[in-house]
Amino acid sequence: MFAAPPRPLARFVFRRGSWQPPSPRALLSTIPTSIAGFLEWQNSDAADVVRVNGFVRSVRAQKKHHFVSLGDGSSLKSLQAVVPADQAEGLTIGAAVRLHGCWVPSQGSGQSHELQVLRADVLGPSDAKTFPLQKKYQTPEYLRTMPHMRARIPHNSALLRFRSETISTLTQFFNDRQFIQTHTPILTSSDCEGAGEVFHVTAGDERQQEAGDTAKTFFRRAVYTTVSAQLHLEALAQGLGNVWTLSPTFRAEQSDTPRHLSEFYMLEAEMSFTDNLSAVMDLVEDMLRHLGNKLAESRVVSELSFRTPGGLADMAPVDQVERRWSGLTREAWPRITYSEAIDILDNADESFAHKPQWGKDLHTEHERYIASRVSNGDTPVFVTNYPRDIKAFYMKPNTEESLGRSTPGETVECFDLLVPDFCEIAGGSMREHRLGPLLASMKRHGLETSFEEVTAADGSAQSPGNNLDWYLNLRRWGCPPHGGFGLGFDRLICYLSGVQTIRDTTVFPRWYGRCDG
Amino acid sequence: MFAAPPRPLARFVFRRGSWQPPSPRALLSTIPTSIAGFLEWQNSDAADVVRVNGFVRSVRAQKKHHFVSLGDGSSLKSLQAVVPADQAEGLTIGAAVRLHGCWVPSQGSGQSHELQVLRADVLGPSDAKTFPLQKKYQTPEYLRTMPHMRARIPHNSALLRFRSETISTLTQFFNDRQFIQTHTPILTSSDCEGAGEVFHVTAGDERQQEAGDTAKTFFRRAVYTTVSAQLHLEALAQGLGNVWTLSPTFRAEQSDTPRHLSEFYMLEAEMSFTDNLSAVMDLVEDMLRHLGNKLAESRVVSELSFRTPGGLADMAPVDQVERRWSGLTREAWPRITYSEAIDILDNADESFAHKPQWGKDLHTEHERYIASRVSNGDTPVFVTNYPRDIKAFYMKPNTEESLGRSTPGETVECFDLLVPDFCEIAGGSMREHRLGPLLASMKRHGLETSFEEVTAADGSAQSPGNNLDWYLNLRRWGCPPHGGFGLGFDRLICYLSGVQTIRDTTVFPRWYGRCDG
Repeated sequence: MFAAPPRPLARFVFRRGSWQPPSPRALLSTIPTSIAGFLEWQNSDAADVVRVNGFVRSVRAQKKHHFVSLGDGSSLKSLQAVVPADQAEGLTIGAAVRLHGCWVPSQGSGQSHELQVLRADVLGPSDAKTFPLQKKYQTPEYLRTMPHMRARIPHNSALLRFRSETISTLTQFFNDRQFIQTHTPILTSSDCEGAGEVFHVTAGDERQQEAGDTAKTFFRRAVYTTVSAQLHLEALAQGLGNVWTLSPTFRAEQSDTPRHLSEFYMLEAEMSFTDNLSAVMDLVEDMLRHLGNKLAESRVVSELSFRTPGGLADMAPVDQVERRWSGLTREAWPRITYSEAIDILDNADESFAHKPQWGKDLHTEHERYIASRVSNGDTPVFVTNYPRDIKAFYMKPNTEESLGRSTPGETVECFDLLVPDFCEIAGGSMREHRLGPLLASMKRHGLETSFEEVTAADGSAQSPGNNLDWYLNLRRWGCPPHGGFGLGFDRLICYLSGVQTIRDTTVFPRWYGRCDG
Repeated sequence: MFAAPPRPLARFVFRRGSWQPPSPRALLSTIPTSIAGFLEWQNSDAADVVRVNGFVRSVRAQKKHHFVSLGDGSSLKSLQAVVPADQAEGLTIGAAVRLHGCWVPSQGSGQSHELQVLRADVLGPSDAKTFPLQKKYQTPEYLRTMPHMRARIPHNSALLRFRSETISTLTQFFNDRQFIQTHTPILTSSDCEGAGEVFHVTAGDERQQEAGDTAKTFFRRAVYTTVSAQLHLEALAQGLGNVWTLSPTFRAEQSDTPRHLSEFYMLEAEMSFTDNLSAVMDLVEDMLRHLGNKLAESRVVSELSFRTPGGLADMAPVDQVERRWSGLTREAWPRITYSEAIDILDNADESFAHKPQWGKDLHTEHERYIASRVSNGDTPVFVTNYPRDIKAFYMKPNTEESLGRSTPGETVECFDLLVPDFCEIAGGSMREHRLGPLLASMKRHGLETSFEEVTAADGSAQSPGNNLDWYLNLRRWGCPPHGGFGLGFDRLICYLSGVQTIRDTTVFPRWYGRCDG
């Protein structure tokens, strides 16, 4: 066992028999700065004193030494440290510590090196008796009562690192393709695109005002949190060409499912001068295949495929998660029409709680059946051309009779992307880019507009009662054919990590009745 | 002049005397897909028929030909097209068109090539009489009445491309440094960090409910839009190490200045296991210097430095904008204390509308004076160690008397980053990481807490009356020293582009009384 020399000053190096100040070279050296880095670091000089920051994951006390497992959120694995008993005071579970010592080959099993500690500094003490994340199984429900602490569970931090890698990979993907990243607004006066219930936003002193009396409110009109960036992206696409955003969206729905949150991130893109839906589906497919190829070899993805004690135990089986990843990287995902999907469901060898019926929306059980039966090798499946009446007002009607049961005008140029054992994770469409048909579609969908009467000749649409006039105006002065999609980002993370509910892939989840932190 | 052959089918190529279908090679060719690409494209085969999408910026009609300027948001410059008179129907200002033709060396001046058009397709017609963005000067105020149209002004689209490049450059910067990108919540039950007025969020059916009666509301507690991601980032830093986010924040302040919006993007980062403020300032400086070096050579930045007719005329002089860019790339930005700043202001050769006084916040006029006089070569300037009583409750007090007039406890370890001729664009601090002092600071700042009484032993803090108990709890089980910063992203874009108000750097700006679209 390494004999501890006299306690050094921080950063001093024990070399040729004495403590010396660090050289400039050493300060710029390759000494790792994270535990993930140390765990891969083989070529240390055993005479160098290094320092490691982290949180105590567990302690095993013996007479002369305490064996400490240290984590810092950079790796699922712990760093093993051997601490002299006289340095172990305060090294309780949860404590934030800085250990100074030597990184030497380990005599035990489990890791190649271990830290022989010379000095331990407790930077943030922890009361072991009350520490809420003891090293035992905790239910997801229990962990959700303390979202501010969850990231300290190793598996949760791996999920967050995976999310971060996904963001930067997709940012690079769109950047390489000259898509412009935009910041679409969160507060909006456009409330009525028919995508669900909205949250209302008011300044503090308006709360006792009469509902509907918006003239004296902060914005002098009713304002909501956005349900989708799409309408604003369409405006930006006219100015910029292809655009995208990854931004928060909101639904005030009283849903209580593992797939719904009140606040969630959507990745949305809009393509300008685009004639058909295939181009939009190609983009979605390219994007997700790129993600699959790019991240499949990533350390954080391999970490997701095994469980940690005390982690998120409520996960899909490992082989299922691996099938999802390999499915993403395959070519030519199936594309079937809604009418074909209904035929498949009619002839299904399963019975459904809800009978499939042309003209009605697909239920999750239907989507799962389609995804599992149509998909070759667990790729996602596109279902296209849904009936007009169950889709949003801005979708462009199909004009050719090539869709089996449907006749022109009855279906729209749209798709949902279904993934095996889960649900819909993305949807897109061509947008109605002609003023007259769009106006007609709004009226058919029961959306109020007095567009003809109130729009000023110069196109400004400031009348607060007509929220979508500006959107209609986009069709008046040069609106090329265009289309785009929205992808539920939290759902994607959930699907690819095998976690069963998006309440556990979002750091501070908000849903009906819950907004902690 | 090029003699137009018979009208071809789209994508057909005129080669060796006849129209031929495109070869697979041609389909995968290097033919540009944007106008920016065409303007740099020298090596075209004059026999190839290409297609160009865009919006008509102007038309000059002559007897046989119309001369059309085309833009698509990819460049400030227009593409010049020569259209036979019989193909020019519908080519009115604003129209979205697809031109098929040959890219040939130009006989005119201004650009090396021009498009000799064979066929023009009008994809989205435009009524020239009412088109609101005629080719003449428009005031920024006028353009703000139609935020959905503004991106079609060439200079506005250049600004948005600059914003996009800035986002991707900073994403790469943090990724390279192993900072984890996170999605902090927008809706929050933590209202009281003292950063200004908040917006309240309610579901639709709650609007007539009595204020304060939150038990039956959607979230069963009062919920607000976030004013800063910082508190949540601190929680994430405990789990992940260094973290960052670029996300929307909100203030319900009735400000009417060029530097304030009700909704704006903040870039915030938090560094874990960090002992001193210098490390945080180093990060800010490295980040902005990296941005300066990386983007200084970018085409979009050079586009920002000249004006376009009908663009944003309300801009800083070109040489001033160039000084700002070169200032970013310099080393060793000045760092002075608040006390030193007060001394400089006391001895100023200017008189101020507000007299500078130790213990009071700096006004914008003071910040501008400091930035212009202290900065060597127009670099930004850090002002550190402000008085405790004018800063937020979570900042860590200074403990050494090394700060001129201040005594221990009177100032906090914080900084504001000031830039020449503008204002503060970033601020940061070390955070109080010890439970007792934090609790005392909250009480001194008048923040209500009944932390001792109500917190459950396991750390869950669900009592709706105590919004910051979870934040206090972060100090109970291992809280290392940490610090971070927030940078006003829209202000940064404003400063580096020379635009005078952030209302014109944000696509859909929201401020007191205004929420269009």
